Amino acid sequence: MKAHVGLRGVGHAVGSAVLDNAEVASSLGLGPGWLTDRTGIVERRVAGPGEDVLGFAGAAIRNACQDGALSLTEIGQETVLMHTQVGPVSVAPPAAQLLAGRLGCAELRVVGIDGMCAEPIAALELALLMLQARRCRRVILSTAADFLSLIDPRDPDTVGLFGAGAGTIILESEAEGDPNLLVHSLYWETHPQHAGLGEALVLGTTQRDTHASLDVSYYTMDGQRLAKVAIRTLPQVLKPVLDEAGWTLEDVDLVLAHQPNTKMLEIGIRALGLDADIVPMPVRWLGNLGPASLLVNLSLARAEGRLPTGTKVLLIAFGLGFSCGAAAVEL
Amino acid sequence: MKAHVGLRGVGHAVGSAVLDNAEVASSLGLGPGWLTDRTGIVERRVAGPGEDVLGFAGAAIRNACQDGALSLTEIGQETVLMHTQVGPVSVAPPAAQLLAGRLGCAELRVVGIDGMCAEPIAALELALLMLQARRCRRVILSTAADFLSLIDPRDPDTVGLFGAGAGTIILESEAEGDPNLLVHSLYWETHPQHAGLGEALVLGTTQRDTHASLDVSYYTMDGQRLAKVAIRTLPQVLKPVLDEAGWTLEDVDLVLAHQPNTKMLEIGIRALGLDADIVPMPVRWLGNLGPASLLVNLSLARAEGRLPTGTKVLLIAFGLGFSCGAAAVEL
Repeated sequence: MKAHVGLRGVGHAVGSAVLDNAEVASSLGLGPGWLTDRTGIVERRVAGPGEDVLGFAGAAIRNACQDGALSLTEIGQETVLMHTQVGPVSVAPPAAQLLAGRLGCAELRVVGIDGMCAEPIAALELALLMLQARRCRRVILSTAADFLSLIDPRDPDTVGLFGAGAGTIILESEAEGDPNLLVHSLYWETHPQHAGLGEALVLGTTQRDTHASLDVSYYTMDGQRLAKVAIRTLPQVLKPVLDEAGWTLEDVDLVLAHQPNTKMLEIGIRALGLDADIVPMPVRWLGNLGPASLLVNLSLARAEGRLPTGTKVLLIAFGLGFSCGAAAVEL
Repeated sequence: MKAHVGLRGVGHAVGSAVLDNAEVASSLGLGPGWLTDRTGIVERRVAGPGEDVLGFAGAAIRNACQDGALSLTEIGQETVLMHTQVGPVSVAPPAAQLLAGRLGCAELRVVGIDGMCAEPIAALELALLMLQARRCRRVILSTAADFLSLIDPRDPDTVGLFGAGAGTIILESEAEGDPNLLVHSLYWETHPQHAGLGEALVLGTTQRDTHASLDVSYYTMDGQRLAKVAIRTLPQVLKPVLDEAGWTLEDVDLVLAHQPNTKMLEIGIRALGLDADIVPMPVRWLGNLGPASLLVNLSLARAEGRLPTGTKVLLIAFGLGFSCGAAAVEL
C-alpha cells in the first residue's frame, strides 16, 4: 500500500526500575555471564512502584502529544485511539477504553487490537486505511506491554528476556501533518499453525466468594523454533515490501526491527545480509517489550537523531501467532 | 461510508445447554417470575459439556463457510479473519490466532479486535476498508462470547442476562461476492468517561508453583445508567447514519440491534419511535451474547427468511466502553 500521512508526534515510556543480569542470574543459581552470553540482553527496564501497563501507555501517549504540541483536551471524535497491549488489566471493558478513560478523554474513539509483537504492523495498516478514507482525522497508534507476572521466575528460557514499556506514534491525514510520513509499502501475514510455539493459556476459572480466579500457564516458548520460523518467513514478507517500494536493501538507511533479543537480531542481520550499523538494538538495555518494542525503537531512534528528513526506514515485526510484517517508510 | 461488497456466507452457533429462569431464580431464592418481569429474558443458551468460546466461534465460521459453499482448506493469505471475543482463553498468543489454528488454517491472516457489544460495528468498518482498498479478497468477520464464569452466581443484576455463542459473516470484494451487501453508511463513537458503568477488572496476579492466578472482579454493571447513556447516545449515532444513507426510519425494513435484554430493547424501541415488529429479539431465548449478539441476530433473521434481496437493514450496537455504532445496509 502507498500512503502519505502526517507524523504529528512520537513518544515512549519504559519501566523506571532496572533489573540487571546479576540479579536475575543469582535467583536462578546461574553465573552472572550466563544470560548475557545467551541473549545479549544486559538489563531490563521493568515496572517500578505504582507503575502498570496502562500507565506506560498513557505516559507514551502524553509524550507523543507533547512532541506534537497536541493537547489531550483538544481531542474529540475526530481522533481514533488504536491500542495494542499485552498485560491483562480487564476482561471488560476493553483495555483501550480504560486507557482512554485514564487519559481523561471524553469522546476519543477507541479500537483495541488484540496482538503480540507483530500486530503493530497490521494496526499501522488499519490506521492508514482509516486516514486515507477520511474515516478520522487522527490516529493515536499506541502499543504497550508488561506481562512479567506471567513469567515463571525459575524458567531460564524466559526469565531474562522481557521488559515493560509503551510506544506511540500519532498520525494525521496528509493535509494536517508536518513532517510527513510516506509509506511506500506494507505487508504482513499470519501462520496460525505455529501459534503453539509461545503461549500463556487460560487453564481454567474458579469462582470464589468475592471474585473469580483465572489460572494462566506461565509463558512458555520454543525460542529455537520461533527463530527458525522467523528466519524462514522474513524474506517472503520483505520481498514484496521492497519490490513495491522499488527499494533494494542497499537503499535502506535504518532498520527498525522488533527486539526479541540481541542474539536473535544478530542471526537475522546475518541471514538477511544487513549492515549491523543500521539496526539499532535497544533490547540490550530495555529487554523485549513485546508489541511496544517496534514503536519504542522508533521513538528512541528519533531521539538519537537517527531519523532526519528523507530517511528510508524498513520497519520489521514478527512474533507469536505466528505473525510477521514489514513496511517501507520514508520520514 | 459507502461500500459495495459480496456477502459470501452467514452463520452462528450457540451453547447447547438451556438455562431457564426457574433454575437461575431458585439459586437466588427468588420466585420464578422475578427474572422474566425484570429482563424479559425467559431462558439462555449456555455452554454444554466440552463447549467453549473458541468452539462456538469455530462452529459459526464453519456454518458461514457451508452457507457460502466455501471450503476452509481453500483459504490462504487472501483471507483475513477479524475476530472479536469476550471470554478469556489466553494471554498469548491472541485468541484470534488460536481460533485460526483450531480451524486448521495454515496461512489465514488474522487480526483480533478487542471489544465488547458495540465493537462489531467498528470491526465491520475496518473489514470494509480492507476490502475496498484491495488489501485482501475476503474477510471472515467473527464474534464470540462466553464469560459466564465471570458472573457472580449471587448477583441478581447480572446472573440472568448472559448466554454463550458466536456469529460470523463472510465478506468478499465486490467482484467476487453474490449476493451483494450494499453499505450506505456506517458510524460509531466511543465515550470513555462511561467505561466504569460495567466492568470485570484484573485485581492482581499471584505467582504459584506451576502457573499464575489472575484475580478478576466479577462482572458488575450499573444497568440503569448504561441504559440512560445508550438512549442518549443512540440518536446522535443514528442521525448521521440515516442522513448519509438518505433514509428515514420509515424506510427501514428491519432493525438488527444488539440484544442486551428484552426490557431495554422495548425502552429503546419506544424512545426511537420504531415499530416493534421490525426489531427481532432473540435475546428472549438466547440471553445477551455480548459482541456475538449482533451477528447471531443477523444470522437468525436470514434463517427465518426476513432478509430477502432488497431488504433495508439498520444495524445498531452499543455496549461497554461506552461505545455505540450503527450501519445502514441493503442486502
